[in-house]
Amino acid sequence: MSKVPPNNSRKKTKNLLLSIQENICKGLERLDGKSLFVEESWERPEGGGGRSRVLKDGLIFEQAGVNFSEVYGKELPESIISQRPEAKGHEWFATGTSMVLHPRNPFIPTVHLNYRYFEAGPVWWFGGGADLTPFYPYLSDIKHFHLEHQKACNKVNPNLHRVFKPWCDEYFYLKHRKESRGIGGIFYDYQDGSGKLYKGKDKNGDAFKKSESIENLELSWDELYSLADNCGNAFLPSYEPIIKKRANQSYSEKEREFQLYRRGRYVEFNLVWDRGTIFGLQTNGRTESILMSLPPLARWEYGYKAQENSREEYLTKIFTKPQNWLEDKTLEKFCKDNNIFD
Amino acid sequence: MSKVPPNNSRKKTKNLLLSIQENICKGLERLDGKSLFVEESWERPEGGGGRSRVLKDGLIFEQAGVNFSEVYGKELPESIISQRPEAKGHEWFATGTSMVLHPRNPFIPTVHLNYRYFEAGPVWWFGGGADLTPFYPYLSDIKHFHLEHQKACNKVNPNLHRVFKPWCDEYFYLKHRKESRGIGGIFYDYQDGSGKLYKGKDKNGDAFKKSESIENLELSWDELYSLADNCGNAFLPSYEPIIKKRANQSYSEKEREFQLYRRGRYVEFNLVWDRGTIFGLQTNGRTESILMSLPPLARWEYGYKAQENSREEYLTKIFTKPQNWLEDKTLEKFCKDNNIFD
Repeated sequence: MSKVPPNNSRKKTKNLLLSIQENICKGLERLDGKSLFVEESWERPEGGGGRSRVLKDGLIFEQAGVNFSEVYGKELPESIISQRPEAKGHEWFATGTSMVLHPRNPFIPTVHLNYRYFEAGPVWWFGGGADLTPFYPYLSDIKHFHLEHQKACNKVNPNLHRVFKPWCDEYFYLKHRKESRGIGGIFYDYQDGSGKLYKGKDKNGDAFKKSESIENLELSWDELYSLADNCGNAFLPSYEPIIKKRANQSYSEKEREFQLYRRGRYVEFNLVWDRGTIFGLQTNGRTESILMSLPPLARWEYGYKAQENSREEYLTKIFTKPQNWLEDKTLEKFCKDNNIFD
Repeated sequence: MSKVPPNNSRKKTKNLLLSIQENICKGLERLDGKSLFVEESWERPEGGGGRSRVLKDGLIFEQAGVNFSEVYGKELPESIISQRPEAKGHEWFATGTSMVLHPRNPFIPTVHLNYRYFEAGPVWWFGGGADLTPFYPYLSDIKHFHLEHQKACNKVNPNLHRVFKPWCDEYFYLKHRKESRGIGGIFYDYQDGSGKLYKGKDKNGDAFKKSESIENLELSWDELYSLADNCGNAFLPSYEPIIKKRANQSYSEKEREFQLYRRGRYVEFNLVWDRGTIFGLQTNGRTESILMSLPPLARWEYGYKAQENSREEYLTKIFTKPQNWLEDKTLEKFCKDNNIFD
């Protein structure tokens, strides 16, 4: 199995990520039906550049941002070197596409996607994932999102999803709130085919349980490329049915306020914990593009407490904790009993 | 000159900071005329606790938060040890009061204040300051705020202000935006009386110019205590006249929108760069109290550009760059010519 990137690895991944950006933007415009993406191309003084696309003030999307970038430089920042010391002293190349959608309707979840590829001297790796942050979650939507991503992973190897799902839970975690950002999805990083699929630590600093990590599952460069391809292109089918189901559900001022409040948590995660944001700011990235993920409007409220047994309370008690969404029957019964299944 | 804290140093500073909190809250309630502070006391599992006071939905203040805390523990977090290695291995004590006010009217500046005291084994230090973040600045307001703080510093030593003013500019700086948070004020940290008043680096990593740092100005514990006392109690006189002048100035929807947009920058500073916030989150502080500084409502807008020669443009071109507010005559003329003096 080839552990060496093909000669055209940079061009090939760049084109893949550009096409993912393009497909997603086309799909979102079709879904929104009102606003269109506006594109800005930019150059990075130290090398490379990108194209940022933003759709504002749509019918469905209050804001949608889909970035593409291809950057390179002489020395990686410390935050990356500490994870991959072999990359020290080598020129590097990174390309990625990332997206955050802030729908207007509080019943449509906020969603994030990012796929990326790095090369630095002898090392290379793929990373990426997609995760959903509902404000008023429905278990049926959650199952659909997870199933589509599971299918996409399974096409490459049936062992991937059981690693990438908990990895997502672990990554999108607000330590200072003791909350997950949302209901997760998939996440993977530093995938270089060497077989060490997951060597992370959980939030207490302990190694993850065996069932959530795999050693000796070697993957080729081509397989990891296909993984990005499959997962990136699984996004629209994973999200579109949710929009169609929820877009006409009317909402109250109170529900809108709760959405804005919870968007505050999104800001907190992105600015305090997100490695992608930190990497961008450290490498003198384009601030406007990096912070395109921040919501058009957000609210903070000191000491907010949800009413007992309310949808708002269920969000923090159930839906911002890692769960086995696809198989937990007790959870399914609870959601059905409380009309938060469909 | 005594470099050793008095026997009752912890109690004395705690009481000072409690009284600053109390005086400020009383003053703000009087100014607001509608809402009152609601107090919550809390305990920190690892030792200590605090009292958080929040005024919501006032006539003047959309939100006002004034915290007091007194915390202690066995080992300081790495972020502090790296600044003060002598404190390593010692039990520590920290007390502080901090405040952020988010006025409703975009013509009244957002303002922040913080005074604090640390002890850890053989070392102790004072820190603190206050800084103003206007959205539609008036030079007269800025001068007043700086003058009151200059007077407060001068009462202890006439050399302090010329160090603390640029230190504030340097600290409240958004590197990723190449902007100051606002028009500054004063800031000092690690003041242990040893005479090294300012050993910081500027944003390019260079040592600050001589005029902005002082060696061999030794101060006693009592003088540094008086400094916190003077400056903390200078806050109301520095801010009250600004409120009275601006509170009845009517504002448009556009000006409100700009205020919300600029509040986004406040969030960015606090979550990305503020050492106080990072310290709080690292020491398992009370998240709700730490993040009380975040605005009740904030906005982000991709690619926002102010109109040429507008008040909004002046904010980033002039008022979020370090300036000699008290003495720059060109600036004064510009502000007078453009009706942004009074």
